[in-house]
Amino acid sequence: MFSPLIEELIGALRCLPGVGPKSAQRMAMYLLEKDRDAAGQLARALEQSIERVGRCSQCRTLTEQEICALCGNTRRDEKSLCVVETPADVLAIEQAGNYHGRYFVLHGHLSPIDGIGPGDLGMDLLERRLSSEPLQELIVATNPTVEGEATAQFIAERARAHGIVVSRIAHGVPIGGELEYIDGGTLAHAFNSRTAFFSGGRES
Amino acid sequence: MFSPLIEELIGALRCLPGVGPKSAQRMAMYLLEKDRDAAGQLARALEQSIERVGRCSQCRTLTEQEICALCGNTRRDEKSLCVVETPADVLAIEQAGNYHGRYFVLHGHLSPIDGIGPGDLGMDLLERRLSSEPLQELIVATNPTVEGEATAQFIAERARAHGIVVSRIAHGVPIGGELEYIDGGTLAHAFNSRTAFFSGGRES
Repeated sequence: MFSPLIEELIGALRCLPGVGPKSAQRMAMYLLEKDRDAAGQLARALEQSIERVGRCSQCRTLTEQEICALCGNTRRDEKSLCVVETPADVLAIEQAGNYHGRYFVLHGHLSPIDGIGPGDLGMDLLERRLSSEPLQELIVATNPTVEGEATAQFIAERARAHGIVVSRIAHGVPIGGELEYIDGGTLAHAFNSRTAFFSGGRES
Repeated sequence: MFSPLIEELIGALRCLPGVGPKSAQRMAMYLLEKDRDAAGQLARALEQSIERVGRCSQCRTLTEQEICALCGNTRRDEKSLCVVETPADVLAIEQAGNYHGRYFVLHGHLSPIDGIGPGDLGMDLLERRLSSEPLQELIVATNPTVEGEATAQFIAERARAHGIVVSRIAHGVPIGGELEYIDGGTLAHAFNSRTAFFSGGRES
């Protein structure tokens, strides 16, 4: 109904996650009618990003530099390494603010059905880091999904072979959550992973 | 927290209507990790659009052609002209499917407080069309807001001066709506604009 070029723009906007036909139309009209500067800026930012953003040579997170700001920060604790699935996970952990070590981004999880094996997750780079760096602990923070757990298991075994302590982040009832609204799987896990209230158990 | 270029991309995506910081981050990660082709396509579509999309010389709707497809369509009824605020309104009316005349897009409404006067709404072009075309009816379909009503009034007076019948689309309870949930203003308008059930009144 709109002219071909506008339809093309609407179609291109629909590729964005969470954007349906109505939102895409609204976005296209907004950009063309109200804010062509923003549209130009977005076009340039997209072009620059797809051209220049690659992966950090140490942790594989997305960055346009050879080494990302976190890997380049000498004040980070180099004795611990946290393995996550995506760059957004790094941000989430950084925002929580109590981890000060380094990261390793898998960009996914093991998924034989999609043809994603250890090579696609940079496992060779991770192994090189495990053998060459003065690591004391590897924290596996993949998602608590079936694939995430399988990936965690796989990584844990590799790290153990290098004599490094491997830990998995805790899963259970979220802080501030109400038991009434927690799903059964999470509750079952929370019971199985309970910690002793007084010393002597897994609680310090 | 992300690298400068990625932060710039996230910032640029936030200019889109309805996109907040979390959605923008999700979009940027999606484009960079999963679909750089789509990102490139979007960048090109944006550039092409801002460069080439202008206004139809007859109806002022957005198009990259000199004259839009609707104005160029000789099968449209040239005796009636419908005035709307935005190109999206044209689409909405076309999708309703029972209007077969031509359009005129104002790109806004009279709003002295924002410095938007008749000149910004292409009123001179509309007047030229009113005096030169074989029009029999001008249908004013601006939004039923204060500014939309003022704009409708303004246009109606201009058209009357040209001896053209001017009508306003009906406002009232939407078809399929339930009275219980309709706001008071709309209900009051629906009562004031009631039509006779049997012939002799405004109903045919």
